[in-house]
Amino acid sequence: MGSNRFGNVFSITTWGESHGKAIGVVIDGCPAGLEISSEEICFELVKRAPGKPLTSPRKEPDNAEIYSGVFEGKTTGAPISIIIFNQDVDSTKYEPIKHLLRPGHANYTYFEKYGVFDYRGGGRSSARETACRVAAGAIAKKILKLNGVEISSTIKEIGGCQDASLFHSLIEEIEKGGDSLGGIIEIEVNGLSIGLGEPIYQKMEALLANAMLSLPASKGFEIGSGFQAAKMKGSEHNDLFLTKSMTSSNHSGGVLGGITSGMPLNFRVAFKPTSSIKKPQDTINFEGDKEVFSLPEGSRHDPCLTLRAPVIVEAMTALVLTDCLLMQRLNRL
Amino acid sequence: MGSNRFGNVFSITTWGESHGKAIGVVIDGCPAGLEISSEEICFELVKRAPGKPLTSPRKEPDNAEIYSGVFEGKTTGAPISIIIFNQDVDSTKYEPIKHLLRPGHANYTYFEKYGVFDYRGGGRSSARETACRVAAGAIAKKILKLNGVEISSTIKEIGGCQDASLFHSLIEEIEKGGDSLGGIIEIEVNGLSIGLGEPIYQKMEALLANAMLSLPASKGFEIGSGFQAAKMKGSEHNDLFLTKSMTSSNHSGGVLGGITSGMPLNFRVAFKPTSSIKKPQDTINFEGDKEVFSLPEGSRHDPCLTLRAPVIVEAMTALVLTDCLLMQRLNRL
Amino acid sequence: MGSNRFGNVFSITTWGESHGKAIGVVIDGCPAGLEISSEEICFELVKRAPGKPLTSPRKEPDNAEIYSGVFEGKTTGAPISIIIFNQDVDSTKYEPIKHLLRPGHANYTYFEKYGVFDYRGGGRSSARETACRVAAGAIAKKILKLNGVEISSTIKEIGGCQDASLFHSLIEEIEKGGDSLGGIIEIEVNGLSIGLGEPIYQKMEALLANAMLSLPASKGFEIGSGFQAAKMKGSEHNDLFLTKSMTSSNHSGGVLGGITSGMPLNFRVAFKPTSSIKKPQDTINFEGDKEVFSLPEGSRHDPCLTLRAPVIVEAMTALVLTDCLLMQRLNRL
Amino acid sequence: MGSNRFGNVFSITTWGESHGKAIGVVIDGCPAGLEISSEEICFELVKRAPGKPLTSPRKEPDNAEIYSGVFEGKTTGAPISIIIFNQDVDSTKYEPIKHLLRPGHANYTYFEKYGVFDYRGGGRSSARETACRVAAGAIAKKILKLNGVEISSTIKEIGGCQDASLFHSLIEEIEKGGDSLGGIIEIEVNGLSIGLGEPIYQKMEALLANAMLSLPASKGFEIGSGFQAAKMKGSEHNDLFLTKSMTSSNHSGGVLGGITSGMPLNFRVAFKPTSSIKKPQDTINFEGDKEVFSLPEGSRHDPCLTLRAPVIVEAMTALVLTDCLLMQRLNRL
Repeated sequence: MGSNRFGNVFSITTWGESHGKAIGVVIDGCPAGLEISSEEICFELVKRAPGKPLTSPRKEPDNAEIYSGVFEGKTTGAPISIIIFNQDVDSTKYEPIKHLLRPGHANYTYFEKYGVFDYRGGGRSSARETACRVAAGAIAKKILKLNGVEISSTIKEIGGCQDASLFHSLIEEIEKGGDSLGGIIEIEVNGLSIGLGEPIYQKMEALLANAMLSLPASKGFEIGSGFQAAKMKGSEHNDLFLTKSMTSSNHSGGVLGGITSGMPLNFRVAFKPTSSIKKPQDTINFEGDKEVFSLPEGSRHDPCLTLRAPVIVEAMTALVLTDCLLMQRLNRL
Repeated sequence: MGSNRFGNVFSITTWGESHGKAIGVVIDGCPAGLEISSEEICFELVKRAPGKPLTSPRKEPDNAEIYSGVFEGKTTGAPISIIIFNQDVDSTKYEPIKHLLRPGHANYTYFEKYGVFDYRGGGRSSARETACRVAAGAIAKKILKLNGVEISSTIKEIGGCQDASLFHSLIEEIEKGGDSLGGIIEIEVNGLSIGLGEPIYQKMEALLANAMLSLPASKGFEIGSGFQAAKMKGSEHNDLFLTKSMTSSNHSGGVLGGITSGMPLNFRVAFKPTSSIKKPQDTINFEGDKEVFSLPEGSRHDPCLTLRAPVIVEAMTALVLTDCLLMQRLNRL
Repeated sequence: MGSNRFGNVFSITTWGESHGKAIGVVIDGCPAGLEISSEEICFELVKRAPGKPLTSPRKEPDNAEIYSGVFEGKTTGAPISIIIFNQDVDSTKYEPIKHLLRPGHANYTYFEKYGVFDYRGGGRSSARETACRVAAGAIAKKILKLNGVEISSTIKEIGGCQDASLFHSLIEEIEKGGDSLGGIIEIEVNGLSIGLGEPIYQKMEALLANAMLSLPASKGFEIGSGFQAAKMKGSEHNDLFLTKSMTSSNHSGGVLGGITSGMPLNFRVAFKPTSSIKKPQDTINFEGDKEVFSLPEGSRHDPCLTLRAPVIVEAMTALVLTDCLLMQRLNRL
Repeated sequence: MGSNRFGNVFSITTWGESHGKAIGVVIDGCPAGLEISSEEICFELVKRAPGKPLTSPRKEPDNAEIYSGVFEGKTTGAPISIIIFNQDVDSTKYEPIKHLLRPGHANYTYFEKYGVFDYRGGGRSSARETACRVAAGAIAKKILKLNGVEISSTIKEIGGCQDASLFHSLIEEIEKGGDSLGGIIEIEVNGLSIGLGEPIYQKMEALLANAMLSLPASKGFEIGSGFQAAKMKGSEHNDLFLTKSMTSSNHSGGVLGGITSGMPLNFRVAFKPTSSIKKPQDTINFEGDKEVFSLPEGSRHDPCLTLRAPVIVEAMTALVLTDCLLMQRLNRL
């Protein structure tokens, strides 16, 4: 069923395949009166762009254009349609591997689910869809900024290493071997007012977990103390109130009962290593026979998607927070 | 705004406070023709019940009754209303602490959000609400069973210890000190067909993460390799296909691209230690003055909620899977 | 699928069958801080109650009780559960007719749809469900009142007659013949601010039409000039602006482009005559054989449901307007 | 809030303004495996196209293109994005009237609601948006056809006249006087299986009424006997069952209790006369001063939108029916 929509009162619907004509997003529920331009959206997209050293060599200018919902530079309350035309697309490389089950990849599950699969560049399952999230996130970020909210992201870990100065050499090495690495992104949000998040089923952390696990290659989400919480005593874990919006520690990660507490929002997302690697791997074909899979020569290959993830994780955070900010307008008489 | 509903085509709406007259759940979208009885629901509720050694001494018989949607022992397609009357409720104990910000607790954020808070027993923020999830989960489990799906849960870790034979002595000890412990629950699901989960925004793992982080005290979710994935190489992490539904390993945790792959679904949820502890803790009151908080004598105190969590996590899993099982009926012509 | 929920940000979920233990409604999204009591809800229910001369002789005290969401007399933002226990229920009368397709009635379509039907008193298809709408409507009306909005309803027509002074004699007569009459209800709403209603698919009139056609026995909806509009010229139909919120006429019925204009909201709903009549009627049984259907002796029979409809139509209006009033909070930065 | 989406499991989201770069629709939830081409969509759009004698002289080729969701001629289950570029757009004509409240038009209510309005060609409030509905409807119609369902539409009445042979002369005459006419469209659907429509709040007639009143200029909806039902006796109105799917009459219009009965679905929609007319009309400007409004020379003017309405009403019908057809897959175990 329809499942390409995200958000409650501020919602996005994304569409498009990796090797189709274009990809796009419709933002429905953006308040009227916001100044926004295509340039501001492209500014965010650049942060996600591959073609930088060590990331996938696809040369996507990713020129987002606003097709509706903005008049004389301001949002009108009508849906905002943003379209990014696909360029530099060569689908012929995917022909020789389309009969194979790609290890760690969704081509087979998509085929089993729908009975048909647009295999070109990964089709709808491609991480290219995240460009639409980033475009919509640019608008959400602007709303947040007007509300004094700031999102910052850090690459916490790449391939088990937490020393950022080593990330590039690590990836260079793995790249040479035709392999890939995963990583962890951390987000901190400052400036949130107390009271955001909608119990019981739209708690702040529930919405964030949902947003993050909808990202391709994500395998885990934790807020505040996260998995470490399981090892602590209550007397250690409880953050003690110093003032109404400041606690002695922040194991809660900025939420209590699913509602923001006034402390910084803090969470982490784990990403697996890119499944598409150059190293040959054993697999089977759609008939069930053993074959060897290796990425076709010249095909795009991103040895560490985590490097491009921060702006994407920020975008999803911004979408959730904007939605919560608006929903909170509804809770009092 | 309304946020007490969970699920897409098979949905639940829960209501009720810890110390109100009753709590309840309305299940909307249960297919007609399912045999179900109040006894089967109570059977699940017993697994969640406190009053067992080492868990909160509230004596809740938790006698769930079906009020609608079932005729001559079978569901009719109409909404199923299940009500559990609250018993053994004494709200007077909460009077002396209602002016305090409870450390690690949601009483203050609820108050800031809504401007009013039913503090008795934690009101709507109490884990008592999870009884409604378990009741609805009993029905979802029955549907899954008819489809050959089986959910099993394990307490993976309590207070950092992974040896299950030590759990009870650990908790006994922490209980004596008036403190509490957290833990990790692991779920494995077998018998799922390939193709469940709805990309892009209703991916199986996104729905599960959402469900799990909506649970009180949960701090993290990971599927398959989870946070460990961030430390692995692609060539290690990729599960190799042996047959179309069997891979050499299960780092994916049973999903590829948000869609079940035929391998067992496998994930973990981290819970913090119970925030309500007997040990006195520094805090402030609603006027901002320093005070000491300690749970009133004779008030309920559960030193390790994780012990009661398995059936709750199973219930949320069952709700998600039933929803996905039904949604999958819509994807082909 | 789940379809017992109505409303966007202020939503209701109703449950219960005519001859079950109880019926009820969960209101999700009611703003916190509203003073409300069971008495105020019962006050509305009395207006709907049968047992008055010329309406169905069921003696339902319809004593609604609030089970959650209200603390110290005020709403808390948590879901409000209202339950009405069914009384004076005797299902044995329906046994002898349960094998028949009731003319104009939903018993056969329900059975075909779900494969099972709780035939007792019409089960879920009974107009008894509307009591839940009225209960929820009582809360919505209170919110509207605080916002200066007033809803008034008129019985415009009964059995083709528009002279209200003749309604009772008309119905008395039809009652004697074991037959029934339909009618038309008109609503006028004053005090609405300009700007309510959400284009394109949640236009005010679209939400109202949806609400009204969800009522049992309703066959038509028209706003402002309604079906007469089709006979007019543009120059006659266009309401001329005298001031920004007053026009020379009100053919629009208070909406322009799906948004309230400041003029009174005005619409009508047509109801068919009650399908359950005492007069014998030809029909067939579930095997397809010809039989004669007549309502069992002593069974309830309401010769003109339209008499009880005003408070129900008002309730649905109040639910739509409250939803729109809240949604409008989201449209500007 | 977001309100540009229509449908439950088969949903559309439309975007775009009359004089923007393009308009478009994203269809989310279309089952995979459906053969569809841009040509088939354009075939439907032609039926709606103005530029025919007596309708608005805009020369829109309305060349719809499919941007996603279709691979090798078949739907893939991914969202289908259809885009129609706007051509022949000249916004300068609207400059001189942008400060006026247009009689019968939404320019003022939009402005009051959002604080900003894209006045060019009516912006988002323009009937141009209905082209997107027709495009999506083309896909829905194809699904229905595969299921043996056929929708037919008739112009029942124009300006009070029911003789179709006189329609063109009537409109020609009104056109000369710079005025406009309304009308009534009737729909009949054959081939529907018994059981479609989801009680209580997604009854077939509730969904249809919602769909129809979301159309610009629509003022009323009635199903089967409609407003005439209010004048009938129960013994006359009840359709007597001859077989399980055939009744002696069809006052019900093909639904019982919100569920299709097997008889033809039959309903009517009333449209007001076009509000934009050439005849000068008294009005006020945004400052509240009296002025005279007349459509600028050379601006588009459609003396009878009802002439173009059939394909639009058919499209909305097709969207509702496809949604119901899919939802019905969920109701049994």
